[in-house]
Amino acid sequence: MKTEKEMVELIKFNEEGYINEGEKAYARRGEIERLAEELAKKDYKNVYLLGIGGTEFSFEPFAYLANKKSRLDFIQLNAGTLTVAWPKHLNENSLVITSSISGTTLEAVEAVKILMKKNIDVVAFAPRDTALAETASKVIELELGENGGIEHVTMLLTFLIYGFLHFRGEFADYPKYSDQINNIFRELVDIRKAFERRADEIAQKTYNAPYTIFTGSGSLWGETMMFSMCFLEEMQWVRTRPCRADQFFHGTLELVEKGVPVFIIKSEDEYRSIDTRVENFCKKIQAEYYVIDPAEFSISGLDEQFRELVSHWIVCAMLSDRLSAYYERYTKHNMNYRRYYRQFEY
Amino acid sequence: MKTEKEMVELIKFNEEGYINEGEKAYARRGEIERLAEELAKKDYKNVYLLGIGGTEFSFEPFAYLANKKSRLDFIQLNAGTLTVAWPKHLNENSLVITSSISGTTLEAVEAVKILMKKNIDVVAFAPRDTALAETASKVIELELGENGGIEHVTMLLTFLIYGFLHFRGEFADYPKYSDQINNIFRELVDIRKAFERRADEIAQKTYNAPYTIFTGSGSLWGETMMFSMCFLEEMQWVRTRPCRADQFFHGTLELVEKGVPVFIIKSEDEYRSIDTRVENFCKKIQAEYYVIDPAEFSISGLDEQFRELVSHWIVCAMLSDRLSAYYERYTKHNMNYRRYYRQFEY
Repeated sequence: MKTEKEMVELIKFNEEGYINEGEKAYARRGEIERLAEELAKKDYKNVYLLGIGGTEFSFEPFAYLANKKSRLDFIQLNAGTLTVAWPKHLNENSLVITSSISGTTLEAVEAVKILMKKNIDVVAFAPRDTALAETASKVIELELGENGGIEHVTMLLTFLIYGFLHFRGEFADYPKYSDQINNIFRELVDIRKAFERRADEIAQKTYNAPYTIFTGSGSLWGETMMFSMCFLEEMQWVRTRPCRADQFFHGTLELVEKGVPVFIIKSEDEYRSIDTRVENFCKKIQAEYYVIDPAEFSISGLDEQFRELVSHWIVCAMLSDRLSAYYERYTKHNMNYRRYYRQFEY
Repeated sequence: MKTEKEMVELIKFNEEGYINEGEKAYARRGEIERLAEELAKKDYKNVYLLGIGGTEFSFEPFAYLANKKSRLDFIQLNAGTLTVAWPKHLNENSLVITSSISGTTLEAVEAVKILMKKNIDVVAFAPRDTALAETASKVIELELGENGGIEHVTMLLTFLIYGFLHFRGEFADYPKYSDQINNIFRELVDIRKAFERRADEIAQKTYNAPYTIFTGSGSLWGETMMFSMCFLEEMQWVRTRPCRADQFFHGTLELVEKGVPVFIIKSEDEYRSIDTRVENFCKKIQAEYYVIDPAEFSISGLDEQFRELVSHWIVCAMLSDRLSAYYERYTKHNMNYRRYYRQFEY
């Protein structure tokens, strides 16, 4: 007899492809750690995480979490702004890390050209033979398939960024952490299955709302923006209002009313109490709210101390993967259709 | 015969009160500069600007502009987060500046108590005999009237923050700048008059929109948030989507369509080209867009080099003062009415 989990069918998801590509990503561990070790020997004064759009948001949890562990500052940098305003502490003592799944993101390529001219080290995650790969000083080749790109890049970033901290002496337990996540993609499949029916229910109730509020904080603010901005706004044309949980009570709260769903993305880090305050408020006024809480889900074999490092991964699977698939089902709006983005020059 | 400007009647605005209180604010210059000079003698390693809600946003332009001039980092700090996550570089070598027009903002008072226990210097702008004034190590007493509080505090912050930079040797022309803004409130009255009819027209067209996009950047991002979040969301219950201009093209652009107004707040600093890109896009697709451009307005006697320092002041007068008055006229929603904020415990 099949267990309930085995009977859940994940829509729009290639389990085998996702697992296979995930294993390939994990297999890059040694190669990327060697680069991390080499980088850790240099006396960098800070680290800039350069991206735009989805990449910018996928760097957010790393910036947040690495800042807690490291003496160095990890600073988010929007690639589109480098040509207009030079960041105060960016110079030849900086390390820049960037990533582009397409390898062609215009703003990123332009930014890296400028950085190279200034002799600033740039490590780029990009597919071979793309403009970005040909521009950066060091390249980690992306060989992504069609199944779960964002989450697989998260694995590669984990090896590079936390590996870098480890070799700097700032993350002693990193090898243990890296060992413990070797099976995480299977775990994330099971989490998907556990969440699938709820994703369906939530999407049915919310897909047609005229306006939807999202709150997030700490290491999950990036995923909050990723889902509300990249997936719902860009790919689903859904009107959202992403709002930092620590700002919610100074403006956006007054918009909560019947017919306005509020998504509360609950972190597993220091900010959790701030997210909970939003939740308690919504409960009190009987708002239509949905708590997205990665803490609900277990990851077999993972130490408690590492939970905060994986919670953004779990939320990515829940929202940007599962919930967006159901939004698409109900809105009938093709995720790949754009009216403006990259459709003409602007 | 009256000139056209003299015939414009500003609704919901006490010109005499605004000018008188503005003169009182300017008269504090010597007192505040003495404090700035004293602070500049200490060897602070960074400056935190502590606020929440409107105060947080009113600090934004100062953080942005002071960061350009100073070797020190000026860092925004949300008062509500201090109890959960300690900022990496905040310690007894930091200077904290905070402000509360009421002097009772709960989060700010709690945060300052914690800072005082850790022997961190806190300069607070607050009315006499309030909780905040009684907690901070140094107090600049606010004696604000009912007319134009935000803009008058901007003057006091100017004396403190740019004065501090001056005495640190990082803003040589500060005395000239301070001299040249001695008449700025009269200038801001005339700018109001020049903008009044347009404010009326814009509000008539937009007050009833189901959802309104705002973009801003650089030194004007704070005012973009101030108007869209504090005024329209909190005080007018208008659904807004504030979006940083450098992120607009990676999500929010796909939401632009008939019936969705886009406000483009154009800065006079490095970011102007990014704002202009949003404007050009909106023009190209024939969106319903409104350009709020402080550069349109002259300030008599002000050197060109100081323009970027006053543009947030101009935008504050245009949006948070004038446009919000007309929103209120058309929505008929009392600006002082709240359903949740400070109405009960949450």
